[in-house]
Amino acid sequence: MKFTIARNTFIKKLNAVQRAISSKTTIPILTGLKIEAEEDRLILTGSNTDISIETTISTNDEEAHLNIESTGAVVLTARFFGDIVKKLPDNTMLLEVKDGFQTTITSGASEFKINGLDANNFPHLPEVDSQTTITLKADVFSEMINETVIAVSNQESRPILTGIHFTIEGNKLSAVATDSHRLSQRVINLPEPIKMPEDIIIPGKSLLELSRMLDDEIDTITLQISENQALFTFDETLFYSRLLEGLYPDTSRLIPKESSTEMEFEAPELLASIERASLLSHAGRNNVVKLTINAANKQAIISGDSPEVGNVEEEVVTKDIVGEDLEISFNPDYLKDALRSFGHTSIKMAFTSALRPFTLVPTEDQENFIQLITPVRTF
Amino acid sequence: MKFTIARNTFIKKLNAVQRAISSKTTIPILTGLKIEAEEDRLILTGSNTDISIETTISTNDEEAHLNIESTGAVVLTARFFGDIVKKLPDNTMLLEVKDGFQTTITSGASEFKINGLDANNFPHLPEVDSQTTITLKADVFSEMINETVIAVSNQESRPILTGIHFTIEGNKLSAVATDSHRLSQRVINLPEPIKMPEDIIIPGKSLLELSRMLDDEIDTITLQISENQALFTFDETLFYSRLLEGLYPDTSRLIPKESSTEMEFEAPELLASIERASLLSHAGRNNVVKLTINAANKQAIISGDSPEVGNVEEEVVTKDIVGEDLEISFNPDYLKDALRSFGHTSIKMAFTSALRPFTLVPTEDQENFIQLITPVRTF
Repeated sequence: MKFTIARNTFIKKLNAVQRAISSKTTIPILTGLKIEAEEDRLILTGSNTDISIETTISTNDEEAHLNIESTGAVVLTARFFGDIVKKLPDNTMLLEVKDGFQTTITSGASEFKINGLDANNFPHLPEVDSQTTITLKADVFSEMINETVIAVSNQESRPILTGIHFTIEGNKLSAVATDSHRLSQRVINLPEPIKMPEDIIIPGKSLLELSRMLDDEIDTITLQISENQALFTFDETLFYSRLLEGLYPDTSRLIPKESSTEMEFEAPELLASIERASLLSHAGRNNVVKLTINAANKQAIISGDSPEVGNVEEEVVTKDIVGEDLEISFNPDYLKDALRSFGHTSIKMAFTSALRPFTLVPTEDQENFIQLITPVRTF
Repeated sequence: MKFTIARNTFIKKLNAVQRAISSKTTIPILTGLKIEAEEDRLILTGSNTDISIETTISTNDEEAHLNIESTGAVVLTARFFGDIVKKLPDNTMLLEVKDGFQTTITSGASEFKINGLDANNFPHLPEVDSQTTITLKADVFSEMINETVIAVSNQESRPILTGIHFTIEGNKLSAVATDSHRLSQRVINLPEPIKMPEDIIIPGKSLLELSRMLDDEIDTITLQISENQALFTFDETLFYSRLLEGLYPDTSRLIPKESSTEMEFEAPELLASIERASLLSHAGRNNVVKLTINAANKQAIISGDSPEVGNVEEEVVTKDIVGEDLEISFNPDYLKDALRSFGHTSIKMAFTSALRPFTLVPTEDQENFIQLITPVRTF
């Protein structure tokens, strides 16, 4: 194998594939990057137990200036090889694999010789043989991931909750995540109704890596599903994620249909108040903040305290308050995550009682995005 | 005590004093910030076992909008108080100390009540009663610190080497640091000759904190020395550092007077080569890079290798090479630190033999700045 390529294009593709490569793995070859040169293209592959990424650079790509002199394949330690490529002196680099997978990387006056591994020992990527292809707007899907992934569980005790649950009904794609203390649900419209064989659960971590790859240059991505894999395709790149197996809990009945108190406000206003209150709740043993609503006075007060350090109290700037008076306590970090996911929007918060979960929805488009938080019992 | 102040001015001063405050200390009151309100000024003080910083905000400072309603003093947990002040909603804050050092901080709709401590228990700052005051250009002194502190030892086994050694001869102030593997020496000219009672050794860490405080707005700083303290004064701020006790080794005889091989180059050129070579030396067990000089061909080759990973070799772009052929090995990290301290300058590197220390000086101004590195024996 022997080829020359423009270093900046190569680095961009390398960075993408490195998302799938862990330097801490018990399978040594998986710390490696697989490089394959075919007649008219270069294929880079990285893989771990959760995700695999394969990306292609074509000889037709004008910016890449790819010139393949001879075909072949090799596996190189990914982190180390990446560091070398990034520090090379010249715009162009030459990579050549010789006997025993000895690999020479040349650029300007600099010549590296590093030990490679046999690419035949690199695991094969899963085969995704699906009839159904779902086409998604990259920015909308990325937003959907970021809005729901905050509620994914970090605890491996219930693995199913470490994923985001996707279902399709007609032309509505719905994503739900819950760690059993809070829940986030987002619905987006697909261009046309699709019949998905069954619902799927994709690990939150896989989706977070995927969303980081979806930059402004990528317009649409497609999703195909096989028995235990999801395959996202975009921009000459294949992104595989394993699916979580098992039954996702029925979350639809968790969301209250009615409310006794409602409060409307701008998300950044409440976020700033909660951030201040959590300075004190974090200092104490119980990370709890209290919201006291006086409906008649249209007054909402956030307070936090820590016996060792002190306390804080402040009135929140609200747009409207209706319903009954209420005193409710909750983990401020859950509310911070939820409010951040809304951005600069007007929010409606709805409560039923001090012990029942409360919800947040954007004042506009209330149907398609809902965050739910379970309060903390303090008495 | 009760005062109002513009929050941005207060935060700036708070950040400065926090440099002296550690959250991990066995003396609880030293995790605190002392705030003193006098008739016409506010004094903030922080202290640890190495450095103390005291800074003043005057009621005459127009940007501060300081209004002192009643005098007094309190000590507040520095990190916690800092976090609160930074997150307050309004441009102005009111601080009031009540019975039992209960402190109320009010800003906009937000009110914090935190527990304070008696300022009488805060340690007194050292008294520096010196006849001699040395005036220094802030930018030049800051540069001097950063150029020499790289060679300061991190090992507490020889505490004296964790400091920078300052001596004055006539109008020349000299700073030297060495960890016994390398040495950095910088000389600056003072406006007039000064008689300093004796040489002093200031901890490198103290000077690094000081240099971080010397921003572009500060033109000159003064230095006064007492038996065991150095006091730097600038911009309404007093910065105290303890001195290291003991005899600093005689470093003047370490610097070779003659050389057998000399090489001239641009610092960034060699730095880039060394960074590449150290990618491989870091992967191996011995962190060593080799420089091979062929004087007749005016050729210098940098190489690094790691048996497990591979090797690298490259010819360095030099401006001139004179003298004898040489093969010398060294720790690339020492050379990287040295080259970075020079910035974008032409450098002269001088060698006597493969086992003797070599030196680097800027081609211009060779007298006042020298870096010395001890090679590694590899045979």
